[in-house]
Formats: sequence, C-alpha cells, structure tokens
Amino acid sequence: MAAPLHVSFLGDDRGEWRVVRQEAVVGEDLAPVARVAIEEGAEPQTRRNGAEAWILRGVTGHQRYVERREAEALRAVQAGLGRAEATCAALIPIRKSSAWWELAQDERRAIFEERSQHIAATLRYLPAIARRLHHARELGEPFDFITWFELAPVDVPRFDELVGLLRATEEWRYVEREVDLRLMREQ
Amino acid sequence: MAAPLHVSFLGDDRGEWRVVRQEAVVGEDLAPVARVAIEEGAEPQTRRNGAEAWILRGVTGHQRYVERREAEALRAVQAGLGRAEATCAALIPIRKSSAWWELAQDERRAIFEERSQHIAATLRYLPAIARRLHHARELGEPFDFITWFELAPVDVPRFDELVGLLRATEEWRYVEREVDLRLMREQ
Repeated sequence: MAAPLHVSFLGDDRGEWRVVRQEAVVGEDLAPVARVAIEEGAEPQTRRNGAEAWILRGVTGHQRYVERREAEALRAVQAGLGRAEATCAALIPIRKSSAWWELAQDERRAIFEERSQHIAATLRYLPAIARRLHHARELGEPFDFITWFELAPVDVPRFDELVGLLRATEEWRYVEREVDLRLMREQ
Repeated sequence: MAAPLHVSFLGDDRGEWRVVRQEAVVGEDLAPVARVAIEEGAEPQTRRNGAEAWILRGVTGHQRYVERREAEALRAVQAGLGRAEATCAALIPIRKSSAWWELAQDERRAIFEERSQHIAATLRYLPAIARRLHHARELGEPFDFITWFELAPVDVPRFDELVGLLRATEEWRYVEREVDLRLMREQ
C-alpha cells in the first residue's frame, strides 16, 4: 500500500467533472456547484483564487475493517480510477454519528460486515464501479468519509442499486449527513 | 467519545515540560531540545515565532483495535491527564513500517493483541500511568503515532518495565522509528 494520499475536491465552475445531479440524502446539502475539480497533494493549489464554493479534503489510508480474505477478493476484482470508458462519476461525502464512533472496533466491524455486508454486497458490483475512499474525520472536516466512484454510463443503474442496498443497511442508520453528487467527465 | 482533538508538541527552550532524557530507540533521533510545550487546536499558535526545533502534530480519535470488553476494562482503570502528582512524563513518537500498514485489519489485530497483548499487558500499569494516543500518519507527519504519558516519579521504574515489555513484542518488530523523551513538569 502506498503512503497516504491527500486529495481535495473543489466545487466550482471550472473543474473537469460537470455536476449532473446533486442531492442531500440525509442532513444539510452542500452549496450547489456546476463542476468539481480533483487535486492531489497535501494542500490544494490556490489556482482558483477562492472562487470555489467549497473544498472537501480527505486522505487515503490503510483499510479499517477489511480482513485478509476480503482484501484478496477485493484486489482480484477491483478496477482503478481513470479508465477511458468511465466517464460517469459519483462523489458521496458522509458523516457518521457520535454513536458510531463510540462503538468499539468489534462492534463497528460486526455492523459493517457481519450484519450490513458492506464488503460482500459491494464485491458483486466490481470491477464495473471503481472507487477510492478518503478519510476526513481527523482532518477536522465536516464529513468523516468522501468516496469517489467512476463508472461507464451503462453501469449507472447498477450503481444506483448498490447505493440503494447500502442505504438500507444497519450501518447506514449511523449516517447523519450524506450528499450524493453525480458527475460526467468533460475535458 | 469527544470529537477528534488536534494536539501539537513543540520542542523548544520555553515549554512547560523540561526534557531530562532523550533517546533514539530505533531510527533517526529528533533534534535535541531543552523543553516541550503542548498546544491543543487545529493549528499550533505561532507564539514561538519559529524558535522551536520541531513540531509534532497528532489527533486523538476512535480506537482502532480495542474491543468492547477491553474498552470497559480500560475505562474502569485509566487515569486522566493533569493529575497534580504526575510530574513526570514521556513523549514517545513511533513510525511503523509499510509492512504493518499493508496488513489487513484482522492480521494487525492478531499481532497487536492476541500475540503481543498490547492491551492486556498495559492494563496492569494503569491507573498509575495516564496516557493519550495521537494519530499522525494521515496528517502527513514523520511519525504514525505520538503517545504522551504522565506519571508520578515513584512510578518511573514501572513505566520503564512497561515500555520494555512492549518493545519485546512481535508488534514492535514493525516499529522502524521510535524516539523516547522523558520530561518533568516545571511551571
């Protein structure tokens, strides 16, 4: 696993990804934006001169709940970001409640996988849907996690099925804020 | 559990804690300093005008390996920081190897507790030794963890026994950098 990678998502009017839908699933929405830019590095470039409506920061890291056999299964099927055919994307920041963070590791794992099947349910949708998880809670951000997904237009219905499955789980009862942005790549 | 707390440890010549010993246990040492100051908040105050030799930043967070029964056991015995009699302290930043971070959650947990008894061995030393763990890896810091300990002078030999136990574990084979600073409070 590579070193943690800092990533910023900038909501503005000039990014590579055009917003085609934005929905506050639970809790407060983000300010509506026309486009999203993605920047890697510890500090986002200030090339937008403050013109962005918001910046969401996160950092990739080691896996918190995935066990060895699951890691191997994921590795065998998952696709990378940047596939030419994956012109659709989703940016889904979520925040979980303090009740979630007060749980012990074994309690969180039991909800995450044994009862909500977060990994097992997701596996069936890979490699069509590539994703990268960014942790944000300990960066002092308004969300705990930011997940970025990339997929081909033909796989959008399967992606909707996947997020619908996850939102019906016991794990998702702990989600107190979630925004769902759908995007298309436009150079 | 409270929200994550950002903490900075500033090595300089004016902090409240006087350094009485500094040792590079594994890997590169930190620049020697006379004192250490501790500041809470997302950004350290710049009141030292860059006079500090180093600043180590970390953030408290939810527990990564502790299970419910262990959390209850810890809660029952652990002491808080700031006890009047706890005039001795230790600041121990460590970095683990990429081999550690490439392990899956179940593999790390097995090494951490089932084989190294990090929690079970530590419990016997509480409440004499108060401690707070700060995560630093995903802040882009040179260390992965920074642990701060406070104890009374009479408990220094027991603290030495505790760190000796931990350094002999399988878990510690993954530690590739560790510095051990011992300090005394001097208002």
